[in-house]
Amino acid sequence: MPRARVSVQVEFCAAYRLAMEGATDEENRAAFGVCFSRNFHGHDYLLRMTVEGEVDHRTGMVADYAALDRLLEEEVFRPLDHRNLNLDVPFLTGVVPTSENLCVHLWPRLADALPEGCALVELRLREGRDHEVAYLGPKS
Amino acid sequence: MPRARVSVQVEFCAAYRLAMEGATDEENRAAFGVCFSRNFHGHDYLLRMTVEGEVDHRTGMVADYAALDRLLEEEVFRPLDHRNLNLDVPFLTGVVPTSENLCVHLWPRLADALPEGCALVELRLREGRDHEVAYLGPKS
Amino acid sequence: MPRARVSVQVEFCAAYRLAMEGATDEENRAAFGVCFSRNFHGHDYLLRMTVEGEVDHRTGMVADYAALDRLLEEEVFRPLDHRNLNLDVPFLTGVVPTSENLCVHLWPRLADALPEGCALVELRLREGRDHEVAYLGPKS
Amino acid sequence: MPRARVSVQVEFCAAYRLAMEGATDEENRAAFGVCFSRNFHGHDYLLRMTVEGEVDHRTGMVADYAALDRLLEEEVFRPLDHRNLNLDVPFLTGVVPTSENLCVHLWPRLADALPEGCALVELRLREGRDHEVAYLGPKS
Amino acid sequence: MPRARVSVQVEFCAAYRLAMEGATDEENRAAFGVCFSRNFHGHDYLLRMTVEGEVDHRTGMVADYAALDRLLEEEVFRPLDHRNLNLDVPFLTGVVPTSENLCVHLWPRLADALPEGCALVELRLREGRDHEVAYLGPKS
Amino acid sequence: MPRARVSVQVEFCAAYRLAMEGATDEENRAAFGVCFSRNFHGHDYLLRMTVEGEVDHRTGMVADYAALDRLLEEEVFRPLDHRNLNLDVPFLTGVVPTSENLCVHLWPRLADALPEGCALVELRLREGRDHEVAYLGPKS
Repeated sequence: MPRARVSVQVEFCAAYRLAMEGATDEENRAAFGVCFSRNFHGHDYLLRMTVEGEVDHRTGMVADYAALDRLLEEEVFRPLDHRNLNLDVPFLTGVVPTSENLCVHLWPRLADALPEGCALVELRLREGRDHEVAYLGPKS
Repeated sequence: MPRARVSVQVEFCAAYRLAMEGATDEENRAAFGVCFSRNFHGHDYLLRMTVEGEVDHRTGMVADYAALDRLLEEEVFRPLDHRNLNLDVPFLTGVVPTSENLCVHLWPRLADALPEGCALVELRLREGRDHEVAYLGPKS
Repeated sequence: MPRARVSVQVEFCAAYRLAMEGATDEENRAAFGVCFSRNFHGHDYLLRMTVEGEVDHRTGMVADYAALDRLLEEEVFRPLDHRNLNLDVPFLTGVVPTSENLCVHLWPRLADALPEGCALVELRLREGRDHEVAYLGPKS
Repeated sequence: MPRARVSVQVEFCAAYRLAMEGATDEENRAAFGVCFSRNFHGHDYLLRMTVEGEVDHRTGMVADYAALDRLLEEEVFRPLDHRNLNLDVPFLTGVVPTSENLCVHLWPRLADALPEGCALVELRLREGRDHEVAYLGPKS
Repeated sequence: MPRARVSVQVEFCAAYRLAMEGATDEENRAAFGVCFSRNFHGHDYLLRMTVEGEVDHRTGMVADYAALDRLLEEEVFRPLDHRNLNLDVPFLTGVVPTSENLCVHLWPRLADALPEGCALVELRLREGRDHEVAYLGPKS
Repeated sequence: MPRARVSVQVEFCAAYRLAMEGATDEENRAAFGVCFSRNFHGHDYLLRMTVEGEVDHRTGMVADYAALDRLLEEEVFRPLDHRNLNLDVPFLTGVVPTSENLCVHLWPRLADALPEGCALVELRLREGRDHEVAYLGPKS
């Protein structure tokens, strides 16, 4: 059977700031520039999830778009939308909320909940028009 | 001489929350829903400014794009980008930072600094993919 | 109080064909070209609704984005998404489902259900990347 | 009968430079900045034409999208695409090819060729992601 | 010689419904949800084709954009645009017209007609703003 | 440590024409079609650079977006924006300025200037809405 990839995406908005544990203001400013904002700043994020699997010979699908949309709604939109990534999200406690780390910590939550027969192959997280991170998983 | 309109836009990101002075949590939740977020949330905003004027017969322009870009850089990007709209912006002190109010308070700052011969006719402020406010000025 | 405009948009997909009542195939082909498709064709539509009103002095809003989103969900997405515009939509019975007519028939359904203090000032309906209709209402 | 607006758009690419007749290099640099480029520069332009008219009671249309697309193809794409706006376009001879002037000179060519019952109400010309001119016609 | 990839894309609109041969309504509704629409629904699709090859040392190109555009026009736009994917397309007879299957069936038609020296490496098919399938070919 | 990819992009505009050294007009027209424009034409280009590296355990980043933005500003925007790619850019002298060749010649300039720990993995160059080249480097 042929294999194919299916991508779905969801938008969410959040506040956050970047700061390293135990670092001085100077160190943080050197590492993060304007993203070390005392009172937080924020973004509209676009998270794109790509899964891969066999095209089912009866349905002609790898996975139902609607099922993948619901997964993003539950695992991404509900816990993150209109939240403060430093303060409001239990699974990000103690994590510097960069786009890289958001992808790394969302990966197992999404990978484990995928429909049968699908494997997670990429998470992309875009902020603003020009900045995007892609994470290909822990084995990449 | 013919008249025309020129639009330029700038992206900026910021954190904020919506809450009314002297209101209870219940009242705020009823008015603002998820935007009454205790620890702030945020957006990537796109501000679009439109000016109108005569097309100069020698230059063929209403206004130089580069001059309008610099104006947005100074009056919008510098004071608002990577800021908390509730705490960090002097000209928004005491203002509920809705998109409507951002436009109302940015209007005089931009209108007064336009190149000669241009009049401000519209500010549009988009947050996320689907939400936008347009303000046509105090006389509209 | 200053007045402002608020726009929200919703995407929906539908099938349809264009044909005039009592017309021959030749007349229909002359009027509609490829849109007179025997077995229907379809689009992803983007409907954008713009309302106008006073900026409330306490909330700083003309209308809550979330309330307008719910209105589009109920009056546009539910009756039209994944439907055949010729066969499945009671309020379009007997209507040639052009974008112009969709706007004309959606107008009263949306205008009558707006939050207090808001007036409907524009519906825009985009199909594909390059084609859009705008309707400014029955008094325009 | 209700009235509505129909918009169609076309992309074209062209080279050009901005310089005033009889001006010194210094004057041109002051007026046009980087757009006074000795050896030309260029853009991908997006021209959007908006027409207005009555919604025909039989067809449900103001104008056929396909007819308007053909008009843009003939009057905009053919004479301008892959051209040098200073050297290759007869109807721009002696014109400083700003977006404002492109709109002013395209207006009569498009207005005179519209389908019966349509009036031209706006030309918008976008270059890059953030710069756009709108022209509402000689009577505006 | 260096190798590179060239991507071109084309938009088309079509109607369709998803249903499995020999399945009950209940089975179809469980598999396809709203896409099992009795009277069809539709989309504006964006098909993106990516080819790979050596950069020719004289022309500096892998393939001429215009030649690839013509291929999409002939093999994708002409047979699919303004059609019903269940009823009007000979090469889709008996195929459940999911995006996955569209890619699988378009692949050989495009791969066999490419300019010399180019290999097809990916087809992407987007419907709406948030849903996309990628197919890397029968050997992937 | 997990690895991730970071992408940033920059827009620039330029004029150019395609012509092979020592070729007749007929040969050039056969190879390049409308891109063999006597007096140049132009585009708004979007260059997207993707780098890969380990997610730093303290900062949570592969590389600072701002540092990558500055690199694009210096190595792409400054030498190419508002320029003629045939005449104004020293590092393109004698090069047919196709998108493929632009990527090939930008690659070493960007690869050598990346922050420590990052490797360049892809350059994408888009012109107009529908045409894009991707270059994966000299070892691909």
